[in-house]
Amino acid sequence: MPPGIVTLLTDFGTLDTYVGQMKGVMLGIDPTLRLVDLTHDIPPQNVSEGAFQLATAVEVFPPETVHLAVVDPGVGTSRRAIVVRTSVGTFVGPDNGLFSFVYEHGVVCAYELRSGSLPRRTVSSTFHGRDLFAPAAAAIASNAIELEDAGAELDPATLVRLDLSSVQVGDGEIRGSIVSIDRFGNCLTLIRPEHLSVGSDIMAIECNGFRADRLNGTYADLDPGSPIALFGSFGTLELSERDGNAAKRWSIRRGDAVRVRLKSVHRSAGGSRILPG
Amino acid sequence: MPPGIVTLLTDFGTLDTYVGQMKGVMLGIDPTLRLVDLTHDIPPQNVSEGAFQLATAVEVFPPETVHLAVVDPGVGTSRRAIVVRTSVGTFVGPDNGLFSFVYEHGVVCAYELRSGSLPRRTVSSTFHGRDLFAPAAAAIASNAIELEDAGAELDPATLVRLDLSSVQVGDGEIRGSIVSIDRFGNCLTLIRPEHLSVGSDIMAIECNGFRADRLNGTYADLDPGSPIALFGSFGTLELSERDGNAAKRWSIRRGDAVRVRLKSVHRSAGGSRILPG
Amino acid sequence: MPPGIVTLLTDFGTLDTYVGQMKGVMLGIDPTLRLVDLTHDIPPQNVSEGAFQLATAVEVFPPETVHLAVVDPGVGTSRRAIVVRTSVGTFVGPDNGLFSFVYEHGVVCAYELRSGSLPRRTVSSTFHGRDLFAPAAAAIASNAIELEDAGAELDPATLVRLDLSSVQVGDGEIRGSIVSIDRFGNCLTLIRPEHLSVGSDIMAIECNGFRADRLNGTYADLDPGSPIALFGSFGTLELSERDGNAAKRWSIRRGDAVRVRLKSVHRSAGGSRILPG
Repeated sequence: MPPGIVTLLTDFGTLDTYVGQMKGVMLGIDPTLRLVDLTHDIPPQNVSEGAFQLATAVEVFPPETVHLAVVDPGVGTSRRAIVVRTSVGTFVGPDNGLFSFVYEHGVVCAYELRSGSLPRRTVSSTFHGRDLFAPAAAAIASNAIELEDAGAELDPATLVRLDLSSVQVGDGEIRGSIVSIDRFGNCLTLIRPEHLSVGSDIMAIECNGFRADRLNGTYADLDPGSPIALFGSFGTLELSERDGNAAKRWSIRRGDAVRVRLKSVHRSAGGSRILPG
Repeated sequence: MPPGIVTLLTDFGTLDTYVGQMKGVMLGIDPTLRLVDLTHDIPPQNVSEGAFQLATAVEVFPPETVHLAVVDPGVGTSRRAIVVRTSVGTFVGPDNGLFSFVYEHGVVCAYELRSGSLPRRTVSSTFHGRDLFAPAAAAIASNAIELEDAGAELDPATLVRLDLSSVQVGDGEIRGSIVSIDRFGNCLTLIRPEHLSVGSDIMAIECNGFRADRLNGTYADLDPGSPIALFGSFGTLELSERDGNAAKRWSIRRGDAVRVRLKSVHRSAGGSRILPG
Repeated sequence: MPPGIVTLLTDFGTLDTYVGQMKGVMLGIDPTLRLVDLTHDIPPQNVSEGAFQLATAVEVFPPETVHLAVVDPGVGTSRRAIVVRTSVGTFVGPDNGLFSFVYEHGVVCAYELRSGSLPRRTVSSTFHGRDLFAPAAAAIASNAIELEDAGAELDPATLVRLDLSSVQVGDGEIRGSIVSIDRFGNCLTLIRPEHLSVGSDIMAIECNGFRADRLNGTYADLDPGSPIALFGSFGTLELSERDGNAAKRWSIRRGDAVRVRLKSVHRSAGGSRILPG
């Protein structure tokens, strides 16, 4: 049987040993587990950024992967500790919206974790990542316990979901916002190709001083310094600068509005539709 | 037989490939080894911070784990290179106090490393992490050599120990200091529950402008912005701010004095006792 | 059969999940692969720094290791995607000079990657690290494909090579430059021992305000604060400060000129020779 895979995404940073402690607990349960860091640099307690970053990564992993994610401002409160199985993987962490994006792939089943069912019995009030989530993830990934033995079954409808930035499709324009900016200054939105496939032509894609008059296929289409708008590796609209840093160049920040202006809209009815982001 | 586990803790950072080079040496000796980063962001040459961070992590690993730690301002001098077995794991690194905290768990045996006994024979004068400690850790973790074949046995009493910040228990108060500040601004001391278990009530816990009038059970006990004092995931007294960064809020730095003022002390004798931190 | 080893070196940083995505693709192909991070903090799109850092690390890995390196400003253009076998390992990445240093070990064979030969068939225009290089590296490291099946064979003479900072050996002096500065402020050049072995004595080693009058054996030879010049763990001349940060102390930056002045040069002919760096 191939070794189980567990990914880790947290806001713990790498200055302290918190991530190492979680790995120690997991390798104590099963030393053959493959542990993969997604990122530990989610801004402290920023659940929505954690939710977005997690969504960018999970689909490339095998579906039997367990994704352990801890951005958990409510640790020690009554927020639930959960494990959720979806078609793209199994997720372990706090029930605070961190898995909102992946729920869109369809929830197969969900359970509230009970520490008594897990290999590590002592649970601190401040570090559930080590004492509750890591043992659960390791036990599940190594098939030491069945999902239904990890806790009490939950109604998926009760899982906490973030109000994710939605994309608005209106007359003559599509409105979204910047949800993340990567190391290269590429600015990501949640606008997807299907938002545009309504017989319309693009007149402009704008965000602060950024303005592109068409979609590009690759970074290489234009001269250095040019604004580039393309559907990036996450599959959504990204704003970039050829050989540069778009976020710095056009002072773009997370949350800034993005507008795609359309020329000839051939649509049946007026009004604006709101699509899930 | 399960794969051997080696943890790594250094002050090498992750901008250069130094850590990768140590891993390359170890996987060349045994490609099945499980390598776990604790942290590589110990401030350069800060042995006491390295000693503290190492102590926070080792107890969650299986006791057969080998912990490779390199914060080594004396590389190339006559400081000894050692391997020390304790009840909580086996430690490989320089004999400069880096393992001071873990020695409190009891030293089983200690050896001075001889490069001639190890798989890598060429040892540079500037990078013992790669040329001496990594081969030793890998050979021990993979059972390629017995501990007693790694070098000459040492008297544990001769191992270098740091003068760790001690905790002073006096009449009406306990005095300690901040030994580490984590990414969230939580400020850690070495004050443990047993320092308080002498029939005394807490009147105040103070550090700079921070002041709490009792111990809390979790971060969730109080309103956002409130000062929180609790025994944290490392088991010692921590100062935090609910939903905030205590270090920033109250300008707390490593080394700052912490005072726990007590109400009714029922103790037999006067004077102050100094407990090991 | 021991598990295959793949190292990763990129300019992706660790704030985003790009590195995690590459690992997910590779573990999906072979979950037993050992994945080792060299560094992901190459300055964005700095191919020469990536080439240098890669060179510092590869020789300590077993020669059957696959080194996956992505610093790729030309992604999406017509630059070739390649796999190159050398005596020190197999290299997968863009054909933009990133492997210039390792080519000096001798190229055994080289191929241009064809995505159709690889396990992952969909290739985005912006993230070849995930969609092309990672599948190639994983398939090669796990022996799922033979090198000659990865693509069309290339003439090694056509591989892109950087014009690496060369070292000039002239009458009475050797001239080089700072090619990298590490976390401790040690300043690395490409000057090697063989550049000095021409019957000459060193009068001075200079760079900005740094001045040493001889080569040292270790960091420990001198008093704290002293300038140190030695052949470091990479085998080339390094400038350091005893117990300090040479780069900060003497305001040394990447690219700054280094001069080794010689006393008595016993050489047959005049003029200056340029040696490969």
